[in-house]
Amino acid sequence: MQGVILENINTPEDLRRLPVSDLTELARELRRYIIDTLASHPGHLASSLGTVELAIALHYVFNTPDDKVVWDVGHQAYAHKILTGRRDQFPTIRTYGGLSGFPRMDESPYDAFGTGHSSTSISAALGMATASKLQGNTSRQHIAVIGDGSMTGGEAFEALNNAGVSKANILVILNDNGISIDKAVGGLSRYLVKITSSKEYNRLKEHVWRKTGGDERKSAGKNFISKSLSALKSSLLSGSNLFESLGFRYFGPIDGHDTAQLVEVLSSLKDLKGPKLLHIVTKKGKGMKEAELHPVTYHAPGKYDAETGLQLNKETGNQPLKYQEVFGRTIIELAEKNSRIVGITPAMPTGCSLNLMMERMPDRAFDVGIAEQHAVTFAAGLAAQGMVPFCNIYSSFMQRAYDQVVHDIALQRLPVVMCLDRAGLVGDDGPTHHGAFDIAYFRIVPNITVCAPMDEHELRDMMYTAQLDGKGPFVIRYPRGLSVHPDWHNEMREMAVGKGRCLCEGSRVAVLTIGHIGNEAAKAIGQLRDEGIEVGHYDMRFVKPLDTGLLDEVAQRYKAVVTVEDGCLPGGFGSAVEEYYGTLRAGGNGAVPVVKRMGLPDEFVTHGSVPQLQSYCHIDAASIANQLRALLNQ
Amino acid sequence: MQGVILENINTPEDLRRLPVSDLTELARELRRYIIDTLASHPGHLASSLGTVELAIALHYVFNTPDDKVVWDVGHQAYAHKILTGRRDQFPTIRTYGGLSGFPRMDESPYDAFGTGHSSTSISAALGMATASKLQGNTSRQHIAVIGDGSMTGGEAFEALNNAGVSKANILVILNDNGISIDKAVGGLSRYLVKITSSKEYNRLKEHVWRKTGGDERKSAGKNFISKSLSALKSSLLSGSNLFESLGFRYFGPIDGHDTAQLVEVLSSLKDLKGPKLLHIVTKKGKGMKEAELHPVTYHAPGKYDAETGLQLNKETGNQPLKYQEVFGRTIIELAEKNSRIVGITPAMPTGCSLNLMMERMPDRAFDVGIAEQHAVTFAAGLAAQGMVPFCNIYSSFMQRAYDQVVHDIALQRLPVVMCLDRAGLVGDDGPTHHGAFDIAYFRIVPNITVCAPMDEHELRDMMYTAQLDGKGPFVIRYPRGLSVHPDWHNEMREMAVGKGRCLCEGSRVAVLTIGHIGNEAAKAIGQLRDEGIEVGHYDMRFVKPLDTGLLDEVAQRYKAVVTVEDGCLPGGFGSAVEEYYGTLRAGGNGAVPVVKRMGLPDEFVTHGSVPQLQSYCHIDAASIANQLRALLNQ
Repeated sequence: MQGVILENINTPEDLRRLPVSDLTELARELRRYIIDTLASHPGHLASSLGTVELAIALHYVFNTPDDKVVWDVGHQAYAHKILTGRRDQFPTIRTYGGLSGFPRMDESPYDAFGTGHSSTSISAALGMATASKLQGNTSRQHIAVIGDGSMTGGEAFEALNNAGVSKANILVILNDNGISIDKAVGGLSRYLVKITSSKEYNRLKEHVWRKTGGDERKSAGKNFISKSLSALKSSLLSGSNLFESLGFRYFGPIDGHDTAQLVEVLSSLKDLKGPKLLHIVTKKGKGMKEAELHPVTYHAPGKYDAETGLQLNKETGNQPLKYQEVFGRTIIELAEKNSRIVGITPAMPTGCSLNLMMERMPDRAFDVGIAEQHAVTFAAGLAAQGMVPFCNIYSSFMQRAYDQVVHDIALQRLPVVMCLDRAGLVGDDGPTHHGAFDIAYFRIVPNITVCAPMDEHELRDMMYTAQLDGKGPFVIRYPRGLSVHPDWHNEMREMAVGKGRCLCEGSRVAVLTIGHIGNEAAKAIGQLRDEGIEVGHYDMRFVKPLDTGLLDEVAQRYKAVVTVEDGCLPGGFGSAVEEYYGTLRAGGNGAVPVVKRMGLPDEFVTHGSVPQLQSYCHIDAASIANQLRALLNQ
Repeated sequence: MQGVILENINTPEDLRRLPVSDLTELARELRRYIIDTLASHPGHLASSLGTVELAIALHYVFNTPDDKVVWDVGHQAYAHKILTGRRDQFPTIRTYGGLSGFPRMDESPYDAFGTGHSSTSISAALGMATASKLQGNTSRQHIAVIGDGSMTGGEAFEALNNAGVSKANILVILNDNGISIDKAVGGLSRYLVKITSSKEYNRLKEHVWRKTGGDERKSAGKNFISKSLSALKSSLLSGSNLFESLGFRYFGPIDGHDTAQLVEVLSSLKDLKGPKLLHIVTKKGKGMKEAELHPVTYHAPGKYDAETGLQLNKETGNQPLKYQEVFGRTIIELAEKNSRIVGITPAMPTGCSLNLMMERMPDRAFDVGIAEQHAVTFAAGLAAQGMVPFCNIYSSFMQRAYDQVVHDIALQRLPVVMCLDRAGLVGDDGPTHHGAFDIAYFRIVPNITVCAPMDEHELRDMMYTAQLDGKGPFVIRYPRGLSVHPDWHNEMREMAVGKGRCLCEGSRVAVLTIGHIGNEAAKAIGQLRDEGIEVGHYDMRFVKPLDTGLLDEVAQRYKAVVTVEDGCLPGGFGSAVEEYYGTLRAGGNGAVPVVKRMGLPDEFVTHGSVPQLQSYCHIDAASIANQLRALLNQ
């Protein structure tokens, strides 16, 4: 399956011993290996198919790992992993104990910098280039590979602005495929289309490249630079090209699937000092018909038939809907009744299901690009003028917009509803993507309501409540994956803000939970009930404001409480409960239960399936039951 | 002092009744009033002097407050405040109970959006413009006024990218003065210089503007657009101008101190739909010689002589150095011995005193522009290649780079030293600038050490310790303002990470403090000692890792502890102590003290002097003493 060339490539040094003429065949084998492997070991398919030739060319031309290659937003780096000593481990990708789906410095010296969130690569490569300069190393190369989608993230611009005036030896490769995870949007995207469709581009492609071949390629490669430079001077791509405006020397666009051409151009650029940008055009999903046609679907398609490329249907049966889909359908239902509602996503319409609203109400649903900061302040601007924006951002990506939530929304008490998708453990994507910190980082911000539904009916009630007048800033966190009930469509009702509910009463110990993880606690309590032990269960619903009335009741009835959350232990929901009981104690109230907190440990939790990770973190039903037994035996 | 025209301007409607010919004189009066007032009521001088004509022209041309003007990073908005009903209150600016130094929605309907942190204005204005469109209002204007410094912030680029493809009715005014607070840096800045010094600019200025006057101006104004458009088409500023690349129509640059010209151009642009950008060139400090010459010094110069502009010396005597200056001198001292140390600041070299290192070691100290996200990942890249970066960011601005600290530094355990300047209450700048949340938002992140010095000797020891091998990510938070000792220059020693110290022992109650606020606690404890009451005092030094050994000792000796921090109560240092004692309790250890937590309340604290605000928050010596007495009498 690996192909006769690929099976002998154990390191980039092996690769560099091949003649250039073998590289196209290697690309074919590599692509085939990725397609065959991911058919039964799901991963990020389409992005990695787009960078097969680039990964080969980079490791062929550059002296990795001494030369540094930073792969932005990491999921495009599978070919890179296979070429750098991880070929045989590749089928373990994204599984517990296996390879990470993203570059990780601790996984391989070839992974120069860990990436998972977008738009960091230029900053990191500039840092490395600056270090090399200070260390007197003038030959080391520093390369950031960044997609056109990631280029819309503000940090990438900050880095371009800074790098453009440095003399750092940095090469930015703009991997332009018109797609981030969904279709790329915005002015930059339109600009890149304009460049690539210009006559200049075609002229360069035709005359400079197509008519040179064989042994002449090498010299043509060197000429490429000077020819381009003079040709561009008086053209559309002249000194005021966007990237040249910022101080980069701009080259391209060239075909990112022509390995020989990539090798030539990269070899030429090696000798050129200072900040430079090479614009390559690639096709996401390249080499697999279905993926080329449907790059959004095939971003991470799950299992599929390796020959036909057709997705294999998962068994669905009478499964509950995903929380994501409940969100997507519910916002439409609410927006049909409340004309002030709008929806916002930073580049994740399919992932969060806002695509449903974008289709149904295109004027009222906005994909603003990979731009979490802008998404939040944009929402604040809408709210300042009377709208009720639902801003849907994955929990771990919301870390990007923390200041904007504090400064633009909370301080001004603007009624923005922030839906944190993929809160808690996300599974295969691992530590860069777990939504571990949001409860802790949002509950400390004044003026915000923070809640989490235990099931999709609560999610709908929370969404309904949040859009009512006078509710102020509202955070609703919910996990990736399936909700709970066979029928998701309850009739929505206003929920009392800051009020929890008692699910069952017990004798000595109560479990307080927040959000969907409450279902694991319910299972544990069910097990104990089967053993004849009655434990109380309270679904607190709100982290902020906390239901202190209910906590008072709990304090009167129980000697110990266990808090369970799918979020970090330090500063989290359990910590909030502990704070409240601490206040009672300090006020002289002695009858306060002890609190045992359960949640994610103070470490970056690895990747794996959600049940594996819940077990690792001791927040699965079995661990909760064990903890309860231990407390009851104390 | 207010001038005969100004004293009759109570609202923008009064302004609009003036003939254009009066506006230049009004600008003179307004500028004089700002200079005279701030001479004895310190504030942000130079930025506001630069926007006098712009503020007049905006309120003259646009129908504020129905039309929306968002002033980026707010401190440039004093003229705006004076013109919009706050003229007589202006001398109260930045004082407790007085006007805010920044626009605030709850202060005036003319403050369309609150600003304090930079680069938010375009996002907010785009949100408002989108709301107007959805509400069927096609005439409302939405204006973002943003400096060239703020334009380097990534969020501004995200917003340009999104706005460029919208059909939203938005006008971005790029107020280009080559200065943010310090000198603007980066590729964008150099690009703007290139535009403004181009022949095209001068030609436009000469021919289109200088030779039209009087009544012809109005028609000239309308012509300006079409003339510019055709003139620009084949020029340097053609379709591939940076802003036009992103989908904006670009106009300018024009002189931002020519009120009549501003009025004409803005009137013309009013009729043009869609996203547009007007580039104006202004001088920071305009109209006051000293401020024009030294715009960095006169950004916020304190008190000065209104006639000569010369700064009035504060009494210094044998005052301790500011923490800022101790940082600035100490990093040089360390860097002279450790060649791996570099310094990074996002546009605050003077504020944080990294300017000292930039002068002494220009190759090793970097001002990366208003770009907190990039600053942090750039530091991570440096650290990945063996350097030891000290990244100095104000606590409230670090909220901008939260994700980068989590994803790029903490997850990869890179040895970056993050110095959080202006942690805790900052005083006059108020809620946008208080460093209230950093203890809580950083102590939840795995792999990070979080500490705070009680005096400048501890600061130096912490800086020394942080740069030693193997210490990993390190956060050191310290406040704005004076340190403690007459002699700042102790001999630096390694500090045991995660170890606090006992300052004095007591009988029933102990105070646990973190950082500089410990000095207030020490005063309170001194007062009680004078009353014959012995209270223990422990300077914990580290929030993470907590000194659990010391907490165990405290638990054995005292029945109650009081925690004091200059940071938010929810999730903060006190909460960490409560968590640890809670763990002991849940483990069956009954002999655990009750914890009374003192810190910043769960609200956005207003502006005022630091002592006023400490008193308001009950973390001054008197409040701590009262709390201790209350506990002892319980």
